[in-house]
Amino acid sequence: MKSRAAVAFGPGEPLKIVEVDVMPPQAGEVLIKISHTGVCHTDAFTLSGDDPEGVFPAILGHEGAGVVVEVGEGVTSVKPGDHVIPLYTAECGECLFCKSGKTNLCVAVRATQGKGLMPDGTTRFSYNGQPIYHYMGCSTFSEYTVVAEVSLAKINPEANHEEVCLLGCGVTTGIGAVHNTAKVQEGDSVAVFGLGGIGLAVLQGARQAKAGRIFAIDTNPEKFALARQFGATDCLNPNDYDKPIQQVLVEMTQWGIDHTFECIGNVNVMRAALESAHRGWGQSIIIGVAGAGQEISTRPFQLVTGRSWKGTAFGGVKGRSQLPSMVEDAMKGDIELKPFVTHKLPLEKINEAFDLMHEGKSIRTVIHFD
Amino acid sequence: MKSRAAVAFGPGEPLKIVEVDVMPPQAGEVLIKISHTGVCHTDAFTLSGDDPEGVFPAILGHEGAGVVVEVGEGVTSVKPGDHVIPLYTAECGECLFCKSGKTNLCVAVRATQGKGLMPDGTTRFSYNGQPIYHYMGCSTFSEYTVVAEVSLAKINPEANHEEVCLLGCGVTTGIGAVHNTAKVQEGDSVAVFGLGGIGLAVLQGARQAKAGRIFAIDTNPEKFALARQFGATDCLNPNDYDKPIQQVLVEMTQWGIDHTFECIGNVNVMRAALESAHRGWGQSIIIGVAGAGQEISTRPFQLVTGRSWKGTAFGGVKGRSQLPSMVEDAMKGDIELKPFVTHKLPLEKINEAFDLMHEGKSIRTVIHFD
Repeated sequence: MKSRAAVAFGPGEPLKIVEVDVMPPQAGEVLIKISHTGVCHTDAFTLSGDDPEGVFPAILGHEGAGVVVEVGEGVTSVKPGDHVIPLYTAECGECLFCKSGKTNLCVAVRATQGKGLMPDGTTRFSYNGQPIYHYMGCSTFSEYTVVAEVSLAKINPEANHEEVCLLGCGVTTGIGAVHNTAKVQEGDSVAVFGLGGIGLAVLQGARQAKAGRIFAIDTNPEKFALARQFGATDCLNPNDYDKPIQQVLVEMTQWGIDHTFECIGNVNVMRAALESAHRGWGQSIIIGVAGAGQEISTRPFQLVTGRSWKGTAFGGVKGRSQLPSMVEDAMKGDIELKPFVTHKLPLEKINEAFDLMHEGKSIRTVIHFD
Repeated sequence: MKSRAAVAFGPGEPLKIVEVDVMPPQAGEVLIKISHTGVCHTDAFTLSGDDPEGVFPAILGHEGAGVVVEVGEGVTSVKPGDHVIPLYTAECGECLFCKSGKTNLCVAVRATQGKGLMPDGTTRFSYNGQPIYHYMGCSTFSEYTVVAEVSLAKINPEANHEEVCLLGCGVTTGIGAVHNTAKVQEGDSVAVFGLGGIGLAVLQGARQAKAGRIFAIDTNPEKFALARQFGATDCLNPNDYDKPIQQVLVEMTQWGIDHTFECIGNVNVMRAALESAHRGWGQSIIIGVAGAGQEISTRPFQLVTGRSWKGTAFGGVKGRSQLPSMVEDAMKGDIELKPFVTHKLPLEKINEAFDLMHEGKSIRTVIHFD
């Protein structure tokens, strides 16, 4: 079948809106009509060419919501008409990782997904007879896309896709990092480095967890109003200080902060976040994705004196079993999604969404296909 | 009073055995007659001059056992005749850290201890009228030493000091790191990097915890026999491979090892230990003390895919409340100490103990004062 799609033909090039060919879903696969998709920094990262796993031409997008159109052989967990969110972190329920109870990092489709392929090693997209790669197992920048059954969360059909699509990545990652990775407890102190979509979601998670003092750190003070609305008690701009922000934070708190979150992907900020953590038990969670080849560093003394350095992917959330209830939370208002949707654009204007993001003007632009 | 002591008069110089003057214990302090003391790599590290906190002249030594001789004003928890182990990690029971239930890193005497001083900011040792600094709050290389009451664990008077002195540092650190910091569970896999005293203690802890596969890694294969005796199932010499040891270990195990321990103080080995940890949930514990200014590094992807980087000091053990029962364990044979004591020397030959350590010939040399 034919589908409108925004295709990344090469690194650093604007996306082109074209009609691609989409093959029917194969065994264990599902064809979805995407209604809405967010545009995330990770899409921009891959588009820039800095992502070592990036392959072209590809259909990017991994933060979407849609409706099942057709299922392949053997698919039992969803049927046509079901509302779904595609998952870049699959949940097969059967691999070592799914069964461990310790992580959400399912490996069922990992090897092929990282190469832009479906589990059988081929693509479902083509343009003028040339294959087009998938992206993160989702490719939500196509109106019709094919994903593995294990990469789909079935959600409440009453949910507002324009908002809950953001649970496909950023918001879930931030909230999940607070609850699943850091396990923030009532009264704990929290610091969030970077107030983009993920950072603001961490703030929401911290408020849900009834954290005590909540520090929000960004070099763009225009982000502070929304941060305060989401629960930040102290907003700091590192450029306002003539010493490293970790030193400022440790002096403000005497011993540091219980849980710190890096939501940018900057290795220097990752270090600052670790070194802001509380002596004895503080932990720092890396959420941001750093550029290829970049490394984090610190003095081992930071760890020997009780700090832990961790990371999280998709906030530790198991998509098929946990995302549906997060959608319910959003419908009840326990997760606020509306403030994230600062811009709405049709597919044809998707390149403007990247511009808005690079200019720091948007939290999220949501693309609609109608 | 007069006391025989091995004094470090300057960095890189051999210790000199002299008679020093020891002041009586002040309020909250205790005078101890040390019977035995181990010689640890940390003593050698400070003696070398590489320790940024090292001050001279000082009386080193922090792995001792002895008997209380006299107590200062207000001391209630020990009395003359009590058998004790001095603690370089105090436990006051009252500070933020002691009360947290999350760490053993008491701060009661931290500020002065790091400067080689007693809590009142002065020293109890002098030689020819010149003050001599304390070391790690212990200074067990003096037959008579003064320590803070909060830095003393009272132990069973039947315990063999020649062995239990090793619970003052290395053995407790290694065993404690397994139980308190890593919390190794039955069947978990473990890797130990560096088979000195601490590494061998980690092996004992892993065996106590009923770990499954236990990897022991060292460039000196002469250590492997004892490692196997202590429970290692796989002994590896990194020099036997033409690829990094972390790659070897990940290939041997498919996804890495549940808990890895760095017991050397080498920042490159710390990286290897982290990168050997299991995808999804593996954790790496830094025990070794790195040289001044050295930094650890890795790609943040290692953490984002589920590994945690941690450290431990004194194995997370709270000395006053937990060390007495570890002494009981040693008396029952549940902790084996005898194999650690490879050499015994009188105080006068203490410099030989450093030589034996540098030559890799000893696990521990225990110095006796009689």
